[in-house]
Amino acid sequence: FSSLTPVFIAIICVLIGVIMKKTNGEKEKRDTKSKHPSRPWVDEDLKDGTDHPLEEEEGDEEWQGLDENVAHVPFTGERYSEAEMIKRSQTFYELLNKRRSVRFLSDEPVPREVIDNVIRTAGTSPSGAHTEPWTFVVVQDPDLKHKIREIVEEEEEINYKKRMGDRWVNDLKRLRTNWIKEYLDTAPYLILIFKQVYGRLPNGKKKTHYYNEISVSIACGILLAALQV
Amino acid sequence: FSSLTPVFIAIICVLIGVIMKKTNGEKEKRDTKSKHPSRPWVDEDLKDGTDHPLEEEEGDEEWQGLDENVAHVPFTGERYSEAEMIKRSQTFYELLNKRRSVRFLSDEPVPREVIDNVIRTAGTSPSGAHTEPWTFVVVQDPDLKHKIREIVEEEEEINYKKRMGDRWVNDLKRLRTNWIKEYLDTAPYLILIFKQVYGRLPNGKKKTHYYNEISVSIACGILLAALQV
Repeated sequence: FSSLTPVFIAIICVLIGVIMKKTNGEKEKRDTKSKHPSRPWVDEDLKDGTDHPLEEEEGDEEWQGLDENVAHVPFTGERYSEAEMIKRSQTFYELLNKRRSVRFLSDEPVPREVIDNVIRTAGTSPSGAHTEPWTFVVVQDPDLKHKIREIVEEEEEINYKKRMGDRWVNDLKRLRTNWIKEYLDTAPYLILIFKQVYGRLPNGKKKTHYYNEISVSIACGILLAALQV
Repeated sequence: FSSLTPVFIAIICVLIGVIMKKTNGEKEKRDTKSKHPSRPWVDEDLKDGTDHPLEEEEGDEEWQGLDENVAHVPFTGERYSEAEMIKRSQTFYELLNKRRSVRFLSDEPVPREVIDNVIRTAGTSPSGAHTEPWTFVVVQDPDLKHKIREIVEEEEEINYKKRMGDRWVNDLKRLRTNWIKEYLDTAPYLILIFKQVYGRLPNGKKKTHYYNEISVSIACGILLAALQV
């Protein structure tokens, strides 16, 4: 089990916080345009914010201004024997099964290169129309980490006391969690994960990020796997 | 690169389809209860369907009827040297970076044990309040695979022609995708991924699944990593 445990638990919390925060903004936007007739599926696909920034943008003929003539990279698949596949899948399961969502963390330093590799790995994740709607921010500075902790704790306290409701708080009791997040100070790094609800084209126009919430969450899964490895 | 490529590309498509389909049902429910006053964040957290099934349920004192006296499993962390961590993270990045979202698949058989290990690995994923809101369904029967393909293609054709709108279809042009999914017949297995918007307690009451969309998507990320390994 790697010493990355501290980092990845911090990630989960920050991730959830960030996603919560960002979707909040979108909600308000969505509320203001709910008069449009409902289209099945697509309205739902857009509920993660895919739709809201698009007023500003025109329907370009080419792919939102990006070059369509990308070089074709031939795909070559390497194959393992059946016995090898079974062995690899079993070993990987055993490794990932050691992960725990702990709330106590080690302050042991981790090489920055490892964090970079892990984020690079998360960046290989698939995403809606290959828009890669994620931003990873690594925080190492103790003061900045502490400020982030203060913001998170302040919001989390309001969550527990007001926003989540009795049942939710009750459900969490069993996990013995609360709004105090000491580990945000302890962890050598915090990886903040931001969901980009839209991008920018070279011409300054907004670029749609389809399925951005699902895409970012899948990338987080791959990030967790990379941390565990 | 493993011969699992066929399987995991099928997964992505099916996953997206399933999530699209399921969220649609929730939308309708949500629409009928939008008179409630808005609570910041939590309303958003619940937009993935966490909230809708709860009318039926009462706020239990214990954790929704589940036993709180779970044995404590001590956590022991194994550690690697810094050099080892760097090497492992680099190797894992190189491996995962070989994944491509291809639309042509091999029909080469894959041992069922590998699929089971991969799904088991996805099941180690973290989830909101540890609710594990996912169901994985493995389909191997050619007729059933073909029926799934027909359903997916039928819905996808409507997506392309009516639901997604001109811009979205235009954005996908560059990726040269369409609603024909031959690979759903070709792949030796399809893994259908269902999001459980709620669970059932032993007493038959509904159990809240917090952050179910994010949780399922993270599990899919881990599934993809396991397939790639």
